[in-house]
Amino acid sequence: MTAMDPRTLRNAFGTFLTGVTVVTAHGQDGEPLGFTANSFSSVSLDPPLLLVCLAKSSSNYDALTEASGFAVNILAETQKDVSNTFASRVEDRFATVDWKVGPNGSPVLSDVAAWFDCSMHNVVDAGDHAILIGEVKAFETGVANGLGYARGAYFTATQEVSSIQVDSETVVSALLERDKKVLFFEDDAGQLRLPTRNVSKGTPTKELTALLEEVGVPSSVGFIYSVYEDEEANAQHLAFHCSAGEGASQSGTFLALTDDVLARVQDAATQIMLGRFAKETQKGNFGIYFGNHENGEVRKIALGE
Amino acid sequence: MTAMDPRTLRNAFGTFLTGVTVVTAHGQDGEPLGFTANSFSSVSLDPPLLLVCLAKSSSNYDALTEASGFAVNILAETQKDVSNTFASRVEDRFATVDWKVGPNGSPVLSDVAAWFDCSMHNVVDAGDHAILIGEVKAFETGVANGLGYARGAYFTATQEVSSIQVDSETVVSALLERDKKVLFFEDDAGQLRLPTRNVSKGTPTKELTALLEEVGVPSSVGFIYSVYEDEEANAQHLAFHCSAGEGASQSGTFLALTDDVLARVQDAATQIMLGRFAKETQKGNFGIYFGNHENGEVRKIALGE
Repeated sequence: MTAMDPRTLRNAFGTFLTGVTVVTAHGQDGEPLGFTANSFSSVSLDPPLLLVCLAKSSSNYDALTEASGFAVNILAETQKDVSNTFASRVEDRFATVDWKVGPNGSPVLSDVAAWFDCSMHNVVDAGDHAILIGEVKAFETGVANGLGYARGAYFTATQEVSSIQVDSETVVSALLERDKKVLFFEDDAGQLRLPTRNVSKGTPTKELTALLEEVGVPSSVGFIYSVYEDEEANAQHLAFHCSAGEGASQSGTFLALTDDVLARVQDAATQIMLGRFAKETQKGNFGIYFGNHENGEVRKIALGE
Repeated sequence: MTAMDPRTLRNAFGTFLTGVTVVTAHGQDGEPLGFTANSFSSVSLDPPLLLVCLAKSSSNYDALTEASGFAVNILAETQKDVSNTFASRVEDRFATVDWKVGPNGSPVLSDVAAWFDCSMHNVVDAGDHAILIGEVKAFETGVANGLGYARGAYFTATQEVSSIQVDSETVVSALLERDKKVLFFEDDAGQLRLPTRNVSKGTPTKELTALLEEVGVPSSVGFIYSVYEDEEANAQHLAFHCSAGEGASQSGTFLALTDDVLARVQDAATQIMLGRFAKETQKGNFGIYFGNHENGEVRKIALGE
């Protein structure tokens, strides 16, 4: 027998960064119920499955494990208060948030990074928790950044960081991505550049927000992807990885990062950074993405109603 | 029948922030095998369980599902290259990393944020993936920050951010935490303050690193927790949430954030921030932590060898 300290184990588990979700369902009395959870994982694309772990000691345990379905709401970085509400003993948690009944019947919250309305696929017993496996029947997603959780506290990779004030000699650029393609501006000679701005003294986000509006595709300020000394501009360069929604750009074009495209990027430092990004996002197809990447499958999934 | 676009679904799943792990085992030929995965979740504290999802199309599928155990290595933010190696078709992935055989027999990597050496508890079929549930037989963790993954690309909440150059009027402070307690310096009058430094023009991290060395407890520069205008100092204030390892401090004391302790914090803005931190870390006991929080259990877990 070996003793294992649960506090140390919990701390070790906490080194794995996670997002934050609110899991919702309707109880047998028809009332909506929900709780905050970070033990979420995507599982399968075909059929579309996800999972979330639920403590047996939870007051929602019976209602959830007997429910015909549940929804998972992935909180946006602006929704710390929603996380706190659904993690505390608030009388009516749903009174404080904007929500509706999802297509499959469970409550889905407004302004989240994504929601998934699921039918119950399987409940797996696992120690002091149960693993709820849901089959996604409907989902919706936007461009908001997810709220982060690390070592027992929230982090917002964008919000806090983007309010840091910088010197005047700073350049911000947007690595605006959609489906592994990146938005470029093209000049008459066929040279490519990223949307880029010089920042006057202040916070980089304001300029970046203006830059993204100029591009004219739904998007939001994303994670800092790279910080480096831009020798050409004699300034520090902050590149933000931003996620683009649907729609065409007024001023730029989304291009896959092929060798040909990279060769047309004039700025050397940007070229190197994009080469790294191409390599990482290509190789980064692990986890849920791995299977389809290996098989090269991109097809419609047929879902039974 | 409804068609669901797998690319859009994958993007929606990708809004949930994750860490990055390398899952390892020994194949039936005795050779070490490993692959990068972000579909990890902690599951249970008693017994100590975790899970990871594995694509059925993976070349490691048979070896993993038939293995008697596996290890999960949570990568540190300095280990993008390790993630890339174990996500690509490198001939001998283990040749490029420092590793050893863990106490339960699976390969564990050096310099990770944490590793867990597990026995196979259960394999659950789930669509195009299998869920491997492992029982933790041994684990180790340190103070390194975990590598992050969001929307198909890495992010490092600390590394990139901390290289941003700031104006001279900047104050950095360390919210150095261990088991929900925070390190304070105490003056003769019993007033408390966080380890704090003014930053001369440059990167805040250098000063913060020096500050942490002064404190004398193993730790590393953590996530930016709060950025605000420090009116008293007429400067911007960057507070970093840092994680402390074992050991006593030469100059400070770890205190729980009770009302009494908060009342002794002289600086008003710091007091407000710590009040928020106390509330969040207390309420933040969701997911794997929820059960024990609700029950208030802190006890040793007995493990069979």
